[in-house]
Amino acid sequence: MGTIKVGIIGAGRIGKIHIENLQRQGNAEVVAVSDPFADEALRQWAAERGIRTVTKDAAEWMDDPAIQAVFICSPTDTHVPFIKLAAAAGKHIFCEKPISMEVSQTAEALEAVKAAGVQLQVGFNRRFDHNFKRIKEIVSSGEIGQPHIVKITSRDPSPPGESYIRSSGGIFMDMMIHDFDMARYVSGEEAVTISAVGSVLVDPVFEQCGDVDTAVVTIQFASGAIGIIDNSRKAVYGYDQRVEVFGSGGAVGVNNDYPNTAEIHTEDGVRRDNPLHFFLERYNEAYADEARQFIACLAEGRQVPVNGEDGMQAELMACAAAESLRLGRPVPVKLSIAAE
Amino acid sequence: MGTIKVGIIGAGRIGKIHIENLQRQGNAEVVAVSDPFADEALRQWAAERGIRTVTKDAAEWMDDPAIQAVFICSPTDTHVPFIKLAAAAGKHIFCEKPISMEVSQTAEALEAVKAAGVQLQVGFNRRFDHNFKRIKEIVSSGEIGQPHIVKITSRDPSPPGESYIRSSGGIFMDMMIHDFDMARYVSGEEAVTISAVGSVLVDPVFEQCGDVDTAVVTIQFASGAIGIIDNSRKAVYGYDQRVEVFGSGGAVGVNNDYPNTAEIHTEDGVRRDNPLHFFLERYNEAYADEARQFIACLAEGRQVPVNGEDGMQAELMACAAAESLRLGRPVPVKLSIAAE
Amino acid sequence: MGTIKVGIIGAGRIGKIHIENLQRQGNAEVVAVSDPFADEALRQWAAERGIRTVTKDAAEWMDDPAIQAVFICSPTDTHVPFIKLAAAAGKHIFCEKPISMEVSQTAEALEAVKAAGVQLQVGFNRRFDHNFKRIKEIVSSGEIGQPHIVKITSRDPSPPGESYIRSSGGIFMDMMIHDFDMARYVSGEEAVTISAVGSVLVDPVFEQCGDVDTAVVTIQFASGAIGIIDNSRKAVYGYDQRVEVFGSGGAVGVNNDYPNTAEIHTEDGVRRDNPLHFFLERYNEAYADEARQFIACLAEGRQVPVNGEDGMQAELMACAAAESLRLGRPVPVKLSIAAE
Amino acid sequence: MGTIKVGIIGAGRIGKIHIENLQRQGNAEVVAVSDPFADEALRQWAAERGIRTVTKDAAEWMDDPAIQAVFICSPTDTHVPFIKLAAAAGKHIFCEKPISMEVSQTAEALEAVKAAGVQLQVGFNRRFDHNFKRIKEIVSSGEIGQPHIVKITSRDPSPPGESYIRSSGGIFMDMMIHDFDMARYVSGEEAVTISAVGSVLVDPVFEQCGDVDTAVVTIQFASGAIGIIDNSRKAVYGYDQRVEVFGSGGAVGVNNDYPNTAEIHTEDGVRRDNPLHFFLERYNEAYADEARQFIACLAEGRQVPVNGEDGMQAELMACAAAESLRLGRPVPVKLSIAAE
Repeated sequence: MGTIKVGIIGAGRIGKIHIENLQRQGNAEVVAVSDPFADEALRQWAAERGIRTVTKDAAEWMDDPAIQAVFICSPTDTHVPFIKLAAAAGKHIFCEKPISMEVSQTAEALEAVKAAGVQLQVGFNRRFDHNFKRIKEIVSSGEIGQPHIVKITSRDPSPPGESYIRSSGGIFMDMMIHDFDMARYVSGEEAVTISAVGSVLVDPVFEQCGDVDTAVVTIQFASGAIGIIDNSRKAVYGYDQRVEVFGSGGAVGVNNDYPNTAEIHTEDGVRRDNPLHFFLERYNEAYADEARQFIACLAEGRQVPVNGEDGMQAELMACAAAESLRLGRPVPVKLSIAAE
Repeated sequence: MGTIKVGIIGAGRIGKIHIENLQRQGNAEVVAVSDPFADEALRQWAAERGIRTVTKDAAEWMDDPAIQAVFICSPTDTHVPFIKLAAAAGKHIFCEKPISMEVSQTAEALEAVKAAGVQLQVGFNRRFDHNFKRIKEIVSSGEIGQPHIVKITSRDPSPPGESYIRSSGGIFMDMMIHDFDMARYVSGEEAVTISAVGSVLVDPVFEQCGDVDTAVVTIQFASGAIGIIDNSRKAVYGYDQRVEVFGSGGAVGVNNDYPNTAEIHTEDGVRRDNPLHFFLERYNEAYADEARQFIACLAEGRQVPVNGEDGMQAELMACAAAESLRLGRPVPVKLSIAAE
Repeated sequence: MGTIKVGIIGAGRIGKIHIENLQRQGNAEVVAVSDPFADEALRQWAAERGIRTVTKDAAEWMDDPAIQAVFICSPTDTHVPFIKLAAAAGKHIFCEKPISMEVSQTAEALEAVKAAGVQLQVGFNRRFDHNFKRIKEIVSSGEIGQPHIVKITSRDPSPPGESYIRSSGGIFMDMMIHDFDMARYVSGEEAVTISAVGSVLVDPVFEQCGDVDTAVVTIQFASGAIGIIDNSRKAVYGYDQRVEVFGSGGAVGVNNDYPNTAEIHTEDGVRRDNPLHFFLERYNEAYADEARQFIACLAEGRQVPVNGEDGMQAELMACAAAESLRLGRPVPVKLSIAAE
Repeated sequence: MGTIKVGIIGAGRIGKIHIENLQRQGNAEVVAVSDPFADEALRQWAAERGIRTVTKDAAEWMDDPAIQAVFICSPTDTHVPFIKLAAAAGKHIFCEKPISMEVSQTAEALEAVKAAGVQLQVGFNRRFDHNFKRIKEIVSSGEIGQPHIVKITSRDPSPPGESYIRSSGGIFMDMMIHDFDMARYVSGEEAVTISAVGSVLVDPVFEQCGDVDTAVVTIQFASGAIGIIDNSRKAVYGYDQRVEVFGSGGAVGVNNDYPNTAEIHTEDGVRRDNPLHFFLERYNEAYADEARQFIACLAEGRQVPVNGEDGMQAELMACAAAESLRLGRPVPVKLSIAAE
């Protein structure tokens, strides 16, 4: 296939990250960008990067036969319409997570993808993090045996603003969805039952939005293995992203990434700098790698590494967690969209 | 008070540890030991340590007015009778955990202690571990703010034998009871609701005994803080005892203790030795310290650091966890024996 | 000044790294490349990157007034002639380390730079490493007081080939020169006396080349502070690059960088992967940063961060070390070229 | 041999430590103590521990045939006379380091020991530290190949008082002598040449006493391996005791010991407590172990683990270092007392 020509839908922060990452690869060319707020500044930004087509509506360039793939980086509520549009146009699709906040809509999107015979990769960027990849490798190698307990800590350095919270879909769909995917990724297993507890301890605005800011979820996997995820919207010391898998033959765990390895010894104790502050710093390389893998898979005709079913399963887990929190009891995870 | 004269009930492994620790302190003197299996070997062992009274029945020396305190190190099902006996004799009591496996019996024991006006310390030795004490200090200092999430990992290097399992009271009463106490200790909070999941992944013998070998419990505290405990009966790399408290102002976590700090670098990677193997190695100093504190409190007329109510609360949490596992749903923790 | 137009002399591995790093910055443009072995492959490689001028001889484009700066990435014995050529043409210069292996020639080069009024930055890339920068910051902040002891470990994963060794100038000029610069950088002090010991322990080829493969140098600084550098040509576990500064108010040390933070626990111990393998992995970001700083300083009319005097001092230290090893006694470091 | 009866010469801090450690072992009995400042307080302290013979002069009990071994814990300048006295009486001897500050006197002492056919163990307690023992084991196992570089850091938390400094024999004989022994112990090699540099950076009192407070020594071993030792009299963050051996097949290094493993994360960074403060905390177990090994070797008729020749070699290294510092050049280490 040689170079893959790509169109980008949504030129916000994450859209621009993908553009810059794609331009650093040898085998991708960004040829078009759309954004409803496209203005002269965006046009100039794009021109400096050799991108000539900048539109408000992706439909204007979607039928360009030179374009083989699109990146959907627009707000979540537009993902499904854009997936249908791109699939109908025969484009391969990279879509940010979650596909949608309604599994029925996600199912429709996956149906469209399947019918069109195109590939869909979901933006679970953490699978491409150097630390979590190493966990996956170790678990897959069998060195630590059968997974028994999977522990995931995921805490943000500071909460988002109220408007973001209101439209976020809640902590499980917005934040913990990454961890649901991680739990599946590192364990290689599917969730059967999910039990959630949650509290508002960081900021009362979460309660006003019908959300929680602190949440713990327990997952029972088919094998009997148990998963634990803890989320907080505010860790004052910075982004806390750790995973541990304990198995019959041992355990593997990863610590956070730090900006340097310096240890400072004074009369007051031994000190090091805080972890990398947030996702842009921590997952910088992971964003580049997920785009690289997507393009490489298309170029070589291979299956993309995180597909629509992966997106669906994480959403089903998020829905179960939300329901468990509401009902105050464990809730079964629907095993597939067919069960919908 | 000067030197405290002590009698020891039960001269098994833990009884002997307490005797040797007490003899290293300046202000305690072990004057009597009882054990239903007392034999010549025990008599000799005691004689070498200057202990002249060795009996099969503690009742033989319980009324000796010189004895001010007793250590109850006998099997769990004998704790309550011995507490009643010692309380009636006006002795202060150090009792191994749990007080009993029936909260109603524990309540009776506490009643007897209260009526006699003696002190009762329960053997939650981990509160005296250097690492966990440091967590408690940091939390108490307010440096990390209000606790939001408490995470406790507690895994044994290898499972006990079948006969032990059968009479153990189950994983929550036998093993996780330490962690229930730890959760209360480091958070300074009381549990409201407990939710347990468990599996048999290590050895089918646990299933045959009506028990599980892998368990995860979620605790909702009164403040909204959330606790997570994970237990496994078999961590092949050794005793895994870690605690982490995450709060509004930061976090504090402790790693395991290791036999040395050597890092060995070869072509195959960087390696260190496994953690201290089991509780006798890891909590060696903690056992000495709990005895030292008990004696010091008696000598100085202060309240002992882990009392009967602490013992009761941990048992109530263990009962709630067992019930939650049985019912498959969260269960409220009875707030006190009054609710029994 | 806006965008700085740059010519590159020498298109080997390090030349290409600089080209790619410069192209990632917004304010630099590589417009010409020269290499005596320039061929069609290089021409094509350059063309793909928008570089139109590719010559065998830098003189062909050196007088292009559009070019403001050159990067000298050719073999060490060509550095001085190219510096003179570039200085005469009024270009600012980035030159790889060492400037030359003869301090008298280095002095001539610095003279030419001074006469031309251009800037010269020497490629001591390690000053731009995130870890060593943090050490420098901590020392400069005064937090650890006056430096007393500076310890630098620098070990390569495997020795170079015989032809490289023969023309390398020896371990002090080729390898330890980085550490001499580091010692000055982190301590902020000048060396007064140097004492070297060395052995051939890795490969007898070093002896055949009149060199050593294992060397330790002690540096006495003007303040009385003492520096220690240890070098080995072969650390089987990978690139070992650590620095520690001990001072009157504390200490700061950095560990190596690792590819991930995973710790793998099995019956055999706790293991992690080896450090990043060699300089391309470890100093990847440092190379980018030194080029970024060079361009930024030119664009903003500031002094470049590592100048010719820095290059000279490190060479004087390397010469003193070589002489010390030969004589078997401490040797004073000539304080400046004026002393030559 | 059964229980070894022991007399103690010198009841200062270290003498009392040995007494208490010996009393915790099953196979040693302390029967006599001498100290020129023996008073009622010491008599009482001894009586509480069952020691009936307390004299001002060791000669009073030295001929007691029941006593098989003596511990010499008196000031250094009395070591040789007491060794001669004890040897003449046929007692095995444990002597604190250094044997003396004059190698000729040390030689006389060793001669007396040899003539009497008794055993002499020198108090290089650090050989019994859990960390350094692990280094020795790894090196001896061959896992890291032939040693190439040995690095020893040894820094005290605060300098001694002036009177101590004046009679200490200087930093090499008083402080670095432990590290000279450590270099021999972990490498298994003998020093050929020693080169020392030193400064007064901590306190001018050292200069007034003809001493330095900061010193770095380079050791050339017979195999070509190189040793580096750095000493400081004042590390504000506490006792800094680290050793690293780098070899043809890898490396092994140990970090300090810490009072706990707690990591505290706040907005200001990640912090842990300082290392164990000084030798009593750090080498608590090592002191016990060296006494245990001494007694066990006597009881079982084995060679003691650190003998007179070990004491001599470390003194010869200290003398060479002092001479190197004085002369400003490397100095050969006399290979044995025969060379005296």
